[in-house]
Amino acid sequence: MAASMVRQPSLFIIIFFAFAFSRTSCDHHHPLDPLTPAEFIAVRNVIKKSYPTSSKYNLTFQYIGLDEPDKHTVLSWQSKPSNTETQTPPRRAFVITRFDKQSHEIVVDLSSRSIVSKTVYKGHGYPLLTLEEQVVASELPLTYAPFIESVKKRGLNISHVVCSTFSIGWFGEEKSKRVLKIQCFYTNETVNLYMRPLDGITVVVDLDELKIVEYNDRFVVPVPKGEGTEYRLSKLKPPFGPHLNSVAVESPDGPGFTIDGHTIRWANWEFHLGYDIRAGPIISLASIYDLEKQKYRKVLYRGYLSELFVPYMDPTEEWYYKTFFDCGEFGCGLFAVSLEPFTDCPSNAVFLDAYYAKQDGEPVQISNAFCVFEKHAGDILWRHTEPGIPGETVREVRPEVSLVVRMVATVGNYDYILDWEFKPTGSIKVKVGLTGILEVKADIYTHTDQIKEDVYGTLLAENTIGVNHDHFLTYYLDIDVDGEDNSLVKRNLVTKPETKNISPRKSYWTVSTETAKTESEARIKLGLKPSELVVINPNKRTKLGNNIGYRLLPGSVSSPLLSDDDYPQIRGAFTKYNVWVTPYNKSEKWAAGQYVDQSRGDDTLAVWSLRNRDIENKDIVLWYTLGFHHAPCQEDFPAMPTLTGEFELRPANFFESNPVLKTKPPKHVALPNCSSTHH
Amino acid sequence: MAASMVRQPSLFIIIFFAFAFSRTSCDHHHPLDPLTPAEFIAVRNVIKKSYPTSSKYNLTFQYIGLDEPDKHTVLSWQSKPSNTETQTPPRRAFVITRFDKQSHEIVVDLSSRSIVSKTVYKGHGYPLLTLEEQVVASELPLTYAPFIESVKKRGLNISHVVCSTFSIGWFGEEKSKRVLKIQCFYTNETVNLYMRPLDGITVVVDLDELKIVEYNDRFVVPVPKGEGTEYRLSKLKPPFGPHLNSVAVESPDGPGFTIDGHTIRWANWEFHLGYDIRAGPIISLASIYDLEKQKYRKVLYRGYLSELFVPYMDPTEEWYYKTFFDCGEFGCGLFAVSLEPFTDCPSNAVFLDAYYAKQDGEPVQISNAFCVFEKHAGDILWRHTEPGIPGETVREVRPEVSLVVRMVATVGNYDYILDWEFKPTGSIKVKVGLTGILEVKADIYTHTDQIKEDVYGTLLAENTIGVNHDHFLTYYLDIDVDGEDNSLVKRNLVTKPETKNISPRKSYWTVSTETAKTESEARIKLGLKPSELVVINPNKRTKLGNNIGYRLLPGSVSSPLLSDDDYPQIRGAFTKYNVWVTPYNKSEKWAAGQYVDQSRGDDTLAVWSLRNRDIENKDIVLWYTLGFHHAPCQEDFPAMPTLTGEFELRPANFFESNPVLKTKPPKHVALPNCSSTHH
Repeated sequence: MAASMVRQPSLFIIIFFAFAFSRTSCDHHHPLDPLTPAEFIAVRNVIKKSYPTSSKYNLTFQYIGLDEPDKHTVLSWQSKPSNTETQTPPRRAFVITRFDKQSHEIVVDLSSRSIVSKTVYKGHGYPLLTLEEQVVASELPLTYAPFIESVKKRGLNISHVVCSTFSIGWFGEEKSKRVLKIQCFYTNETVNLYMRPLDGITVVVDLDELKIVEYNDRFVVPVPKGEGTEYRLSKLKPPFGPHLNSVAVESPDGPGFTIDGHTIRWANWEFHLGYDIRAGPIISLASIYDLEKQKYRKVLYRGYLSELFVPYMDPTEEWYYKTFFDCGEFGCGLFAVSLEPFTDCPSNAVFLDAYYAKQDGEPVQISNAFCVFEKHAGDILWRHTEPGIPGETVREVRPEVSLVVRMVATVGNYDYILDWEFKPTGSIKVKVGLTGILEVKADIYTHTDQIKEDVYGTLLAENTIGVNHDHFLTYYLDIDVDGEDNSLVKRNLVTKPETKNISPRKSYWTVSTETAKTESEARIKLGLKPSELVVINPNKRTKLGNNIGYRLLPGSVSSPLLSDDDYPQIRGAFTKYNVWVTPYNKSEKWAAGQYVDQSRGDDTLAVWSLRNRDIENKDIVLWYTLGFHHAPCQEDFPAMPTLTGEFELRPANFFESNPVLKTKPPKHVALPNCSSTHH
Repeated sequence: MAASMVRQPSLFIIIFFAFAFSRTSCDHHHPLDPLTPAEFIAVRNVIKKSYPTSSKYNLTFQYIGLDEPDKHTVLSWQSKPSNTETQTPPRRAFVITRFDKQSHEIVVDLSSRSIVSKTVYKGHGYPLLTLEEQVVASELPLTYAPFIESVKKRGLNISHVVCSTFSIGWFGEEKSKRVLKIQCFYTNETVNLYMRPLDGITVVVDLDELKIVEYNDRFVVPVPKGEGTEYRLSKLKPPFGPHLNSVAVESPDGPGFTIDGHTIRWANWEFHLGYDIRAGPIISLASIYDLEKQKYRKVLYRGYLSELFVPYMDPTEEWYYKTFFDCGEFGCGLFAVSLEPFTDCPSNAVFLDAYYAKQDGEPVQISNAFCVFEKHAGDILWRHTEPGIPGETVREVRPEVSLVVRMVATVGNYDYILDWEFKPTGSIKVKVGLTGILEVKADIYTHTDQIKEDVYGTLLAENTIGVNHDHFLTYYLDIDVDGEDNSLVKRNLVTKPETKNISPRKSYWTVSTETAKTESEARIKLGLKPSELVVINPNKRTKLGNNIGYRLLPGSVSSPLLSDDDYPQIRGAFTKYNVWVTPYNKSEKWAAGQYVDQSRGDDTLAVWSLRNRDIENKDIVLWYTLGFHHAPCQEDFPAMPTLTGEFELRPANFFESNPVLKTKPPKHVALPNCSSTHH
């Protein structure tokens, strides 16, 4: 959500020997593989060489990621036989550095170890924040005399104060500096610092100078109590419960999937799992094997979380700016946590690491950043019992198994469980679980009867208001239904009067199909009328003549409630519609723009879409926003049970018939004469 | 969905000895336990005695179920200490018989073995259809000369013809007879008869006479091919796939739940699982243990599927009447199938049987009608990783386990997977999976290019149209949030301008609370405005003063598209709103009325609600409709991958804080040195 607490980077740094470097020089890369540690080092070395005067204080790497090759290059590479060795497209890195108070965009070619291009960005907004500059900024108040005084005034002990960094948004200012706000918390008695804010204090830090440039202590409210905020099992007191039984989930034949580099194959699916510090997991080149056609068919060229907009609904001086763009400002991938076996992912999960570069360009490993597991939830893939055939008992049931790829982004207080679930039916379910800790503000109230004004949230504990907010997760979905050129079709369900007197029936609904020709025809608020959205391949039909397609099945739908002219909504205008479609454009990756920190909304999906380009029978990208309005409740205190949202991409006349008709039920495995071991 | 194929009843009849009877006479019954086999026999004997002249042909039992005691009686029984033995309220059965072409309502007292009341129903509509009369009706065409001729005319072999029964609805007729329509199918080459309809033929059977009263062979269309319609694994040909890996799910300590009679206890939940031939599973007296208050607290007095309305969207003479009310006409519980271990339910499931009475009053067992299992889907109950505390690594993760109660109703072609999922967080998720076989009609088309008219569906295979239709599942939810007297509160999220110039922010949303005072204020179409629906107990508040409540979280929402004055919609008017609230009234159980077959919509929820009764701070019932519009696609052929819908009841300020904060993660169980056995 927002508050950016900091991984201790020193713990994770890994040292690269010749072995690591040797991996760079070989050609086993998939063109969409994320950068390797050795590649990060190469990038750093190339760039540092070109800034001979830079000291570590004035050149910072804000972003280093794969400079994704052009789509046609990747597809052409993919279509070539895998044994030819020289096919891999050139590896390039895209880099944003801060240097002399400017943002520099640099493309580095990794094979030639040279800079391909280098420009200074002159537009609005700033790049991703680094963890390291946030650590430094968040520690500044602790040695800042007026802050020390404020802490004393509150009767608190500075040694228990921890501070956190908050992006400040943009509210119409003509000029801007690269600054952050700092909020501080009290950690005495608890590690749940978010529940113990020191409110009334405003601290602004200039990130290019790394110093406090504004300080204001406006009022004192009680710091909420530590009591009841602890969530560590080791610190909680009995009674414990409810008791949950232990369980063993084992695949005796080992996992049903293979991981080859970053390519994962399972059941009828094949896809590439990438990683990026902004997006987190990136699913690419997802194809499904068609048993009847005996070949893999394309479904999704690239899918990832493009932005995560979290506006808070408290307009007061202390809170109005809290309108975070977690992926573009803080990095949803950068905040990936190391997943814990058996709890974050079930016992049959396989874990994968991820790598990013620190502010100084050094690679850092996030161990267990992803897990991949087969999900056996007890659901049914399809079934039928047929008692109608004389003398025969027919009962055919296929239990469901699916494959889940999971990453958890803990952006400060909030934990986002980001799941991509692949089903053998061809469905892709994208799920988000919200958990972690709420952002609260301190207030004077200890009972709702005392509250006579709008407090912009719910009283969760004494002196603790859980502030109302939204979460909008905007997904980039470059769907390629059986090929690149696709169209968005609205299959509207329309009531028809039965006027021909062919029967006593007076009405029915039928499907009225409408193809979106331009971008404006594909901006859709869901739920206003009954309609199915289908991405079709207008160039291919089933044997029977139906358009080959994939449907979007939304879950529960939310739309923003801010006024269109409010600054956060201008920056987050891409959430106004649940669905947008754009023609594929390599540069249009981030719904909130490339430079999101203090952005002014001039480089968003909503702006690109104003060109109203043709999207019929084009290589199109579907943008889907999954949203939550969150008015907190006491159950969310002091840590919040997961709240889940999801959507599904489901084949619709993509296959000639049920693609899992010929799936055999997995064998049941009994574990008879063995003693289990608890640990 | 509709076509009512018939369980071979002779296979299931069980013989009752003294043992079974002895169970009736003891007082171990929970007052909401479904009738036992011995009780069915007692009911039959008592009633048969009172109809001395009745032969088996003119007295039929259309419905025998528990005559549920008054709610206050049950609650008073429940509140007494469990060791007093004489508390059980009197057991009574509610019976509907057909006798001399009339519907009789009879209440039988089971302890005195006497009839308490007996009335003849004079209103519109007819009771549930029995399986046995449908079997007889469905076999009539096979010996009916004009039908034999029609089969010959089509060049088919009558020995492969199987027929099925269809309720006819009501379309404004002034007078009605108790009739059914019959549709026949061809089973040569396949057991997937639904895909091989003999269309163009109308057969009407009088159920009181059990003879064909109308016959019409209007046109001949090709019977769709059998090829490609088979779904039995044993009959399918290679290649098979996709391959799904085997898995073992074991709880080495045994199940984490106990089943005591019909009462199930698991984690912090306790509830009663009943069974009824109309509703299927009935959840009663669901309470959750509050660790802080150290007591069970009420959540749901009674919840069940009240009706399942499935209107088809083909207005032609052959199809217009297909507007089924599966629970009220056919019996969603009556069509419960025997669940298959390891496929219908995972290996850690426990199975329960159900009993109903045949048309002659004899009890029948449905073995494995329910399964109960702990679901380990790999989800996360709550988590947080906290890197922000200097010198400490905090990572607390609780994996989710939930408890699922499942029944599958295969009403002819369609299989409905009815799940009730209880979560330790206090959430109850109600899920429905639609699978099985579509209802299709035969047509002349073999390619969509030939189609120049509305065919009311999708071409799924040659000569096979999957007809558009809806599924509306209306749930009865007598929610008792911490006590009986509750109110429905709409927590509307309202955009507010920020006009006080307290900050540069221009807008925010806040919660504006509205309590529904009368029924009309609680008829709600969801999705039209951002609003949270909460059932609160206005008489209880949390320590902080928040209203104790439970939220309704809808899933994807659908509303009917038929015109309000169309006959099926008059009968199904209760689907017009997604949410209704009524004051508790023992007689208002069935949303479509007590007599649904050929009903005229005069006894529905929509009619009761017109009284516009007070519902504020009353014992209220929430009615929720979960709906699907289904425009079939080729993937649904020849058997349909499960399509799932759901809604959730989730505590909202019901607990003082997160109720699973003190849940310990279940122990991980390793299964080290043991060899697994496939079977």
